Parts: sequence; C-alpha cells; structure tokens
Amino acid sequence: MNHRLTIQYDGTDFHGWQVQGAGERTVQGELARALSLIDGRAVAVHGAGRTDAGVHALGQVASVELRREISGDKLRAAINGNLAPDVRVIEARVVEEDFHARYSARGKTYCYRIFNARYASPFLVRYTHTDARKFDVARMRECARLFVGTHDWTAFSAAQADVETRVRTVTQLAVRERWSEEGRGRLIEITASAEGFLRYMMRSIAGTLLEVGRGQMDAAQVARAVESGERSLAGATAPAKGLTLVEVHY
Amino acid sequence: MNHRLTIQYDGTDFHGWQVQGAGERTVQGELARALSLIDGRAVAVHGAGRTDAGVHALGQVASVELRREISGDKLRAAINGNLAPDVRVIEARVVEEDFHARYSARGKTYCYRIFNARYASPFLVRYTHTDARKFDVARMRECARLFVGTHDWTAFSAAQADVETRVRTVTQLAVRERWSEEGRGRLIEITASAEGFLRYMMRSIAGTLLEVGRGQMDAAQVARAVESGERSLAGATAPAKGLTLVEVHY
Repeated sequence: MNHRLTIQYDGTDFHGWQVQGAGERTVQGELARALSLIDGRAVAVHGAGRTDAGVHALGQVASVELRREISGDKLRAAINGNLAPDVRVIEARVVEEDFHARYSARGKTYCYRIFNARYASPFLVRYTHTDARKFDVARMRECARLFVGTHDWTAFSAAQADVETRVRTVTQLAVRERWSEEGRGRLIEITASAEGFLRYMMRSIAGTLLEVGRGQMDAAQVARAVESGERSLAGATAPAKGLTLVEVHY
Repeated sequence: MNHRLTIQYDGTDFHGWQVQGAGERTVQGELARALSLIDGRAVAVHGAGRTDAGVHALGQVASVELRREISGDKLRAAINGNLAPDVRVIEARVVEEDFHARYSARGKTYCYRIFNARYASPFLVRYTHTDARKFDVARMRECARLFVGTHDWTAFSAAQADVETRVRTVTQLAVRERWSEEGRGRLIEITASAEGFLRYMMRSIAGTLLEVGRGQMDAAQVARAVESGERSLAGATAPAKGLTLVEVHY
C-alpha cells in the first residue's frame, strides 16, 4: 500500500533531508530506519524535496510503499515511536498507487524568518536568523514584486546545481512583519511559493531582500540580477537556520 | 550600580533557576559566572522567583549590584557573550539602589501550555505538555473561576514548602485555546496571575484543570480542594516542561 506522510522536523541537528555518507544523521535516513523496522524490510522514502542541513520543515511530504497493511493512524504512531523528538510524522494516510511525493507535487511554500533584535531569543534561536540592524520592510516589500513570475534563477542558485533548466515560476513572495510574543521582538517573515525551488534559491532571495532592507541594494540591482542571471549581482545566501519548508502543494 | 535584568531561558537543559549542588547547571549559576567575569569578582544574582527544573521563562527578572560602571546595553551584550544560547538577557538597565528583583515584585504571571494533538510537534515539544485526549475547554474555564481570590493553597503546593503561610491571592486565571501554526494542532493555554506562587502551585492548578477538562473531576471537587486544603483532592501536578514564567510585575 502506498502511504503519504506529512513530516515536521527541527533541522538543527540534521545533515539535511537526504541520506548522505555513513554516519550523517538525515531525516530521510531516520524515517527509512523506522519504516524498515515496521515493514520488516528496507523501505524507500521519497521526499517532496531535499532540504539542506539546518533547514526546518512544518509540512514536508514523503511517500512510501509498504508491504504490510496498516491504517494511517497506526502507521503514524508506529513511526513516531521509533523517532527522536526533533522529527515527527504529523499525518499518515493511505493514498492511490500513483501518488509520488516528488513527482506529484505542483509547488512548495517556504518561509524565511529574521528575528530583528539585539539578542537571539532562546525560543527563536533555532528557527530564525537574528539580525539587529535596521530593516526597511516597505522597501523589501516593493522589491519582492520583482521576483514574482517566470525567470531563469541562475543568479539565485548554487553554481553546482545539476539541473536541466534554471527556469522556475515564483507565484507569490510576501514580506510581513509581526511582533513575536516569545522573542519579545520583531519578526520579519519572507514567504515564497513556487512550482519549484533550486538549491539555495530561497536563501539567496532572502539574503538579497535582507540587503535591500538594510539599504545595501536597490530595486535596480535586484532587477538586473533577476534578468541577467549574474550571480555576483545577487545578495549573500542567508543562513540555513532561518528557513522552513512550510508546505508542499499537490 | 544596581542593574535590573530581564531574562529568557529554555528550561529544558537546566536544573531550574537556583544554584544547587556542584555540577548542576542552573540559570542563576550561569548568570553569576558571566557577571563575575564582567565585574572581576563574585556577583550575587537575585531572581524574582525560583523556577523548577524544566520550567521556562519569557520574562524572569534579576537584580545585580556591580562595582563597574556600565550601561544597560553594554551589560546585556557582555553577559550574553558569556552565555549558552538557551539563556539570554533581553534587557538590562540601571535602576535605583532599592530595587530588588524578589522583594520589589508585586506579582507574577505564569502560563501552562498543553498541545492537544496525537503527536508532539518538534517545534513545541520542549515548551508544551502534549496530551491527545479530549478536553472540554468551556468546563475548564468555568472551574478556573473557583481559583481566583485569596485562598490557602495547601492542597495545591509542595508538602515540604517551607513557608510561613500558604495564603496567596490569585488575581486572574484564564483558559484559552488557539490554533498553533507551528504544531498544526490545538494549544490550550492556562494563564494565571498571582501576588505570589508556592512551589508546584501553578503546575498543580494546571493538572487539576486538565482533569476537569477530561471529565475526571468536577467543579464541586475543585471547590472542595480549594476550601479544605486537602492535597488528595487536587489533581496531579502537571509536567514541568509545559510551564513558562511569562512576567514579573513591579
């Protein structure tokens, strides 16, 4: 039976989603281990997308094919019983045979969070990037519009990304600010939806918008980076800890 | 100069606020160590109140007398530079000589949080108590009113509490429910303000309200526990991890 899992993880202590060399703790590796115990054989775990080391997920999705017949609720409980507290299956359900977490996905939403204070709150330090400098959020919001649409994202992705095309469509890019009760300071949240993200794309967009907010870049430069694909025109890649995969759209 | 510090900590990896035997990591101990480095001598740290092992703080307050002249902003940065990420001074300021974090306090607000879902979210697991059972929040809210007022809290405090009187005034006790975007589930928050809390008092009130919400106790029993001071009539003490010291009132 084919199962769809919705997964949360605090990426702090993981070397990302994907199984790497021996000894590296990964989310995919932990799930595969737990599922193999349940199904009595090696189970392949297909994730909707790879997240890098330190990146978190509120709603990562994976599909797994199990030999054993088991309900969604029981499967969720059985997997969670074999996982550490920093990764959790929040929903499991039986789905049609042709569902594949990666190939069936129509898009994803990521959120990059900056805690704009002069201290890193213990309650936010794992999930946000702290920056005490002044940010002009209205300016960031104006520039955010430049990213929406279909573009070649060469300037905003890893040089080594082994993909056929770097053209992707960003459908939404919002910059919000709100007060954090936990941190007792201001949070700036950059939320982006796209049909697909290249490696480092979201962190590069976030890093660019942070430079815009601090007055180190202007709209003309951003537009040139988006249009030209010149990597040197984009801002620095923002730290992984501020990034969360919010949702996968099907 | 006398300084007032506002402190946040994730209590998970602390043996509470107060310095204990050697080798026990405590918040007071970590602060005293950092301050001694700054002031070049042993510094006494007076906290507004002790929190037990595993209990968190969004706004604990401490007062410290320093020989060295230093501004609030510089002191905050200097202390934070000598602390681990799970404890942080979010504000430091020079105050009148007669300010004392404990003796000047007029009251405190605590919040007990229950994540009411069938899994412990990685983003909430450190700061909430997870309970999947059904809770009747309206019923909890009705019973919460019974706690407000001046009572002898013997039934709701540690047997060994070495205090002259167990009479305290609870000024507010609210039960709220809200959706948690992080956990993707329901949070039940019990917020209490009082001029003072005895040891285990808040966790015992929370544990009692949880039993009320699950239908294991009714209003008559709660009223009897409050009036009689009979420990056996109160609910179980709720786990420390769900409790947060929100604010100290001056």
